[in-house]
Amino acid sequence: MSSLFVRTLRDDPADAEVPSHRWLVRAGYIRRVAPGIYSWLPLGLKVLHKVETIVREEMEAIGAQEVHFPALLPREPYEDTNRWTEYGDNLFRLKDRKGADLLLGPTHEEMFTLMVKDLYSSYKDLPLALYQIQNKYRDEARPRAGILRGREFVMKDSYSFDIDDAGLEASYQKHREAYIKIFDRLGFDYVIVQAMAGAMGGSKSEEFLAVAPNGEDTFVRSPGGYAANVEAVRISAPEPVDYAEAPAAHVEATPDSETIETLVALLNKDFPRDDREWTGADTLKNVVFKLRYPDGTEEALAIGLPGDRAVDEKRLEAAVEPAEVLDFTDADFEKYPNLKKGYIGPEALGEENASKVRYLCDPRVVAGTRWVTGANEPGHHVIDLVCGRDFTPDGVIDVAEVREGDPAPDGSGPLTLARGIEMGHIFQLGRKYADSLGLKVLDHNGKLVTVTMGSYGVGVSRAVAAVAEGTCDEKGLCWPRSLAPFDVEIVATGKGEEIFAAAEKLASELDEAGVAVLLDDRKASPGVKFADTEILGMPTAVVIGRDLANGQVEIRDRKSGEKRSVAVEDALAEVLKEIHGH
Amino acid sequence: MSSLFVRTLRDDPADAEVPSHRWLVRAGYIRRVAPGIYSWLPLGLKVLHKVETIVREEMEAIGAQEVHFPALLPREPYEDTNRWTEYGDNLFRLKDRKGADLLLGPTHEEMFTLMVKDLYSSYKDLPLALYQIQNKYRDEARPRAGILRGREFVMKDSYSFDIDDAGLEASYQKHREAYIKIFDRLGFDYVIVQAMAGAMGGSKSEEFLAVAPNGEDTFVRSPGGYAANVEAVRISAPEPVDYAEAPAAHVEATPDSETIETLVALLNKDFPRDDREWTGADTLKNVVFKLRYPDGTEEALAIGLPGDRAVDEKRLEAAVEPAEVLDFTDADFEKYPNLKKGYIGPEALGEENASKVRYLCDPRVVAGTRWVTGANEPGHHVIDLVCGRDFTPDGVIDVAEVREGDPAPDGSGPLTLARGIEMGHIFQLGRKYADSLGLKVLDHNGKLVTVTMGSYGVGVSRAVAAVAEGTCDEKGLCWPRSLAPFDVEIVATGKGEEIFAAAEKLASELDEAGVAVLLDDRKASPGVKFADTEILGMPTAVVIGRDLANGQVEIRDRKSGEKRSVAVEDALAEVLKEIHGH
Repeated sequence: MSSLFVRTLRDDPADAEVPSHRWLVRAGYIRRVAPGIYSWLPLGLKVLHKVETIVREEMEAIGAQEVHFPALLPREPYEDTNRWTEYGDNLFRLKDRKGADLLLGPTHEEMFTLMVKDLYSSYKDLPLALYQIQNKYRDEARPRAGILRGREFVMKDSYSFDIDDAGLEASYQKHREAYIKIFDRLGFDYVIVQAMAGAMGGSKSEEFLAVAPNGEDTFVRSPGGYAANVEAVRISAPEPVDYAEAPAAHVEATPDSETIETLVALLNKDFPRDDREWTGADTLKNVVFKLRYPDGTEEALAIGLPGDRAVDEKRLEAAVEPAEVLDFTDADFEKYPNLKKGYIGPEALGEENASKVRYLCDPRVVAGTRWVTGANEPGHHVIDLVCGRDFTPDGVIDVAEVREGDPAPDGSGPLTLARGIEMGHIFQLGRKYADSLGLKVLDHNGKLVTVTMGSYGVGVSRAVAAVAEGTCDEKGLCWPRSLAPFDVEIVATGKGEEIFAAAEKLASELDEAGVAVLLDDRKASPGVKFADTEILGMPTAVVIGRDLANGQVEIRDRKSGEKRSVAVEDALAEVLKEIHGH
Repeated sequence: MSSLFVRTLRDDPADAEVPSHRWLVRAGYIRRVAPGIYSWLPLGLKVLHKVETIVREEMEAIGAQEVHFPALLPREPYEDTNRWTEYGDNLFRLKDRKGADLLLGPTHEEMFTLMVKDLYSSYKDLPLALYQIQNKYRDEARPRAGILRGREFVMKDSYSFDIDDAGLEASYQKHREAYIKIFDRLGFDYVIVQAMAGAMGGSKSEEFLAVAPNGEDTFVRSPGGYAANVEAVRISAPEPVDYAEAPAAHVEATPDSETIETLVALLNKDFPRDDREWTGADTLKNVVFKLRYPDGTEEALAIGLPGDRAVDEKRLEAAVEPAEVLDFTDADFEKYPNLKKGYIGPEALGEENASKVRYLCDPRVVAGTRWVTGANEPGHHVIDLVCGRDFTPDGVIDVAEVREGDPAPDGSGPLTLARGIEMGHIFQLGRKYADSLGLKVLDHNGKLVTVTMGSYGVGVSRAVAAVAEGTCDEKGLCWPRSLAPFDVEIVATGKGEEIFAAAEKLASELDEAGVAVLLDDRKASPGVKFADTEILGMPTAVVIGRDLANGQVEIRDRKSGEKRSVAVEDALAEVLKEIHGH
């Protein structure tokens, strides 16, 4: 400790939003260099390397071969797949001294595809899995939580190449099994959920989420085993309703009812139903957004959904990607005089109608359903407006908030919601990249066929933060044995030379036994040393202090807080027992 | 081999300038992505990782602690040391989505200085050595020779921090010893030479050069132990000469003598000396260059040197860095009517004279020396122009070519010249960065003092190319055992099942003995397999083929080409003997 390049800090960093960030900085594991850009100090780097080793071992175990691509890449391949544009502001772009366009790789599908195209030509060469562990770059709009969402970060990305769909499915399952082993070894509490393919393209996709209250992702699960990122939830649409008996739509004055609550109250007072009370679910709320596409064009989009639900912005962002979602401002309303803010109704919406604004509805808005909704006239709503009779949306969009207790789409019971950190993501890309970049091989009939691909990622630097987040407590970091920078910290307290000599001796013995030992040999007070021990978070500590006079030392377990005294001559054996569990 | 991601190529890459580049590409170790930007295939990456491991072990052995900085860095610290500007076009610069200036780190002095400033505050914390192994970025004007001079490359850079000069010297020597161990282990033929500090600033500096005819650096050495990069050679100036007896300078018509050769011939014909013949060394050649500084300003610079020597452009570039050296074009001459091309003389040069052009002379041009030189009038030269009497240069510049046989500056004998590849560079930076960035600590008297630093680099990816360059032959790569991706390649030739079974068995046995084995199990002709074995370059090959019927297999040594037959049952023991040398 007296020569280790580490200093613990008393105060939280000003920008710390989550415990892992706070403790990784205060314990001297990482340091901020710029927004979303961090340096690794010796202790942090040891943890990062341990994660890399686990990931590398499990990749090798499924026969994936390690390669390494540059981070600095030419524009052309990303132009061919349109991602140069689609990535929008998230891509770091630059020019070299000759004016050539370059980018910092956010992910490497293009490069791997071209590499395989360069080397391979036959079905006999497949299946193939390649991986790399590498710095990735994304110019996040909101880098946050230290290394949980950085702009430069370490990822393991791998790619599988197969001749047909069955091959892809097999490669995908192999990676899925490897990921289970990786996350088991890292010691995560994690869930595997259905996911959106997002900017990667492709079809089947799952995420591995570390369960964490501070996670950025929300996921749902049911008692029957359904699990999905909320972005990927696809609710089942109800059956169409017979509307032969439905009364004609009628516009009514609804003063002072600009919110769903006031509207429902007014309906129940002035237009009571025979069968039951009106609820928010009887109203159709129409919300307008502005989409901005990567090429800069903008479009207004109206979304109709039951009034008791809000639009979930993350679900909306995922649904319209790569377009960006912006607020529809008063200035935008001025450009669409047909849209009466607060009273927008379906009759003004849709590509065929007055406003020409594209109109997509929640899956619950099926033919025959009857709604109270805006009448496109301030202070007025229309009642008994029937979908399929009085209006027809341009399409369906499933972006309403998912709520605790909603039925699982597969009928496996009510959903519960929780939050998580995306640690791994596996995709069946299919032929999207191979098509764009011309990756074909000869099949067994000598015919050229397009290769089908999978793409698989693990957030390596993020895993350090996620484990810290899942294990730290109010005193500091608290590493699982698999990732701790040192197995044991020996704390020498007091001033006697014999104390430091005993500490040195135990440290040497443990070192010889292959144990990674951190020896706190500083001339500091016991209080300072104990506090640092808890902040740094090695799983086991041995305190050698005044009890040495009685032949005793103390073994502390960081996680449980348990302390026990052992005879100094038994210390080596007892510590080895703690480490090896027997 | 049937599943390894590698393909050998029959043809040289179009841009291959040196053997290592040709073979690394043809053997499927690396692939070009863009100029100076390469991907690592599995075999190449294994070699790179071996180099990294050697470097890491020797850094740990001297107590250096590993950290890891981002490659993407903010502008401000590089602004504080003026390197944001000084690096000129060599720096990759970019802006993030918010318009902030970023750069891709070419070297990390600033970041390390700030990190130590952040954590440390006392002389008790020193000495300290930190290192990282990391991607570096330089936008080279002429990336060349594959990974020998790339624009994205892997470096180990380390930095030492000391309280005083004696500490810096000790830290420097520790690094020097570690570098000797590293380069010994890598198996280089290398020399340690005095070097220029260059863009790093600082004073004492040495380079480790791999001796290579294709190297970009030229170095000199003497029988007495002097060794220096030509850029760093500082010749010893002769003593001033008494010129009391020298005749007055006299201008003479010298028609048709625009070159040194024709001038010397004319002198010997029309103005013969009594004592000896005129030689080129009696003439003073004045060459004009244009310097462009990083801030964009330009300056004309005249250099006077003995006519039998040329200006060495690399020595000149090193001497004027960070300014760039450009040709002095006809258009430039038009701006300086006092400079008569081909007849420029000292009397028109210098900041005090007609042209105002700064005039620096070779160290051999000392007071009292007599010269034949341009008379600033077409077709005329001046004879007996005496330095210190008839002209006074603005200063000294030591950039004339150094020649085989020149005396070593330290009197240790005649110099020989050779070429090399810069593999390592160690610098005593001193207080330059600590001053600019305010890195001070309290000394033992409680007074704030500026820390003194060293900076030390190893070209990790370049080492792969340099070893390849130094070991390859006309058949392909030829790795030393320390770096070979596999210890042994087993080549099964022929069609018998028993051949492949024997090959598999030997491979498993070697694998269990901890040997890294590559098994060529492809269905290909012996000719194809043997050629690939030589291209790929593992130190030992075992051929199992038709001689197996007689109980024999063949062991081949890649480097010597020696082949010997051994009994199949002895193969394991014999191969282990090859590997372990006993």
